[in-house]
Amino acid sequence: MKLFVFFVAAVVLVAWPCHGAGYQRFPLRMKTGYGERSSEVKCASFRLAVEAHNIRAFKTIPEECVEPTKDYINGEQFRSDSKTVNQQAFFYASEREVHHNDIFIFGIDNTVLSNIPYYEKHGYGVEEFNETLYDEWVNKGDAPALPETLKNYNKLLSLGFKIVFLSGRYLDKMAVTEANLKKAGFHTWEQLILKDPHLITPNALSYKSAMRENLLRQGYRIVGIIGDQWSDLLGDHRGESRTFKLPNPMYYIE
Amino acid sequence: MKLFVFFVAAVVLVAWPCHGAGYQRFPLRMKTGYGERSSEVKCASFRLAVEAHNIRAFKTIPEECVEPTKDYINGEQFRSDSKTVNQQAFFYASEREVHHNDIFIFGIDNTVLSNIPYYEKHGYGVEEFNETLYDEWVNKGDAPALPETLKNYNKLLSLGFKIVFLSGRYLDKMAVTEANLKKAGFHTWEQLILKDPHLITPNALSYKSAMRENLLRQGYRIVGIIGDQWSDLLGDHRGESRTFKLPNPMYYIE
Repeated sequence: MKLFVFFVAAVVLVAWPCHGAGYQRFPLRMKTGYGERSSEVKCASFRLAVEAHNIRAFKTIPEECVEPTKDYINGEQFRSDSKTVNQQAFFYASEREVHHNDIFIFGIDNTVLSNIPYYEKHGYGVEEFNETLYDEWVNKGDAPALPETLKNYNKLLSLGFKIVFLSGRYLDKMAVTEANLKKAGFHTWEQLILKDPHLITPNALSYKSAMRENLLRQGYRIVGIIGDQWSDLLGDHRGESRTFKLPNPMYYIE
Repeated sequence: MKLFVFFVAAVVLVAWPCHGAGYQRFPLRMKTGYGERSSEVKCASFRLAVEAHNIRAFKTIPEECVEPTKDYINGEQFRSDSKTVNQQAFFYASEREVHHNDIFIFGIDNTVLSNIPYYEKHGYGVEEFNETLYDEWVNKGDAPALPETLKNYNKLLSLGFKIVFLSGRYLDKMAVTEANLKKAGFHTWEQLILKDPHLITPNALSYKSAMRENLLRQGYRIVGIIGDQWSDLLGDHRGESRTFKLPNPMYYIE
């Protein structure tokens, strides 16, 4: 019996990371010596591990985490978590002397504009990303503000910081993105940087690094970076910034 | 009324980050527009923000987070969170070809040896750190293993990785640390690096970077770093490692 448990555990442990689809299809349940974990507990650990960048490059969330993710997003914890992160960014900003070329960089999707209306129709990340469907949704220009980020955005503006939006959205979405930002309450910005489809970069991390390098060359001081993806926050050319990771338990962009 | 609320909020927002003691003395309650957050919700956000490195350099946890932290540590979530992080480290390790000079670096306190027995007598981080009392406790040599890390340690050893313990404990604790590690089930290691009190470094981050530089010079390949503090995981000379952040909602070491 002990050997069998060991064998099962070994197969589980070896098989898990080999799945291209990451967590989705593989049962997370493992004999642990302290009993089975409930989905709620396991998925809270999944979520924490995503936020602390311990779980990376997952293509879908585990199937058993659909309901816990839904509960998290729609309950008060997600908003509280967003609030705490935005507060920290504001506290940090409010302690600084503001120079005229100081910028805060914000991502767009799931940082200032919520894409939860899209994801709630697509299993909160359990389905693999479908660019066509997602683009259709983006092109509606109907994404609401993430309210805690909107508050922080307004506070940073009133402190005198300039705002740069830096997104992986392609340039053909410029008009709809501008309109959506304004509709959601983000009325002003120093720059809105979308991705030139001719620009070849290996991933979002290097694209965002390259765009930040441009900003530094233009004479801006990057004071803070706020995003829902680690690829917004890691990489080069971060200037003297502190970075702030907003919660996103639904997907990962490399 | 609206103005009054705004004024209170402004005072709260400005006053909060000015406290030397960080979160402790200041009421976290704020009018948010979506109702008051309970301590449970706020402290879960505090914890998440600490793990994702959004909250830094706190000297004590907020007073209202003592009970939620106690519940978290003593409930199954803390252990589940530790398990998930250790699993990720193992999955990552198991996909690599092992070279004879490949090492995993582990911290000691709250990474392999639990200091929860100490912290549960000191408010789970609500009291400012008392080096004398903590040293007395360390010198007992009675710290238990963190069970999920112990499992992972044994698995990494059986994959063929070498283990280096790198700790901010001072060199005078070498004997008690060796004995405590063995007593807790950590029977072997490639190196156990404690801090030379004559070595002056500005903080733990630079101390750990310097020690890693030594390891790289000695020809080791740093494959993974596992610690409960961001100062274990950030900084220079990380080789080709992936890093793994174990949960610690109780204190922060710069």
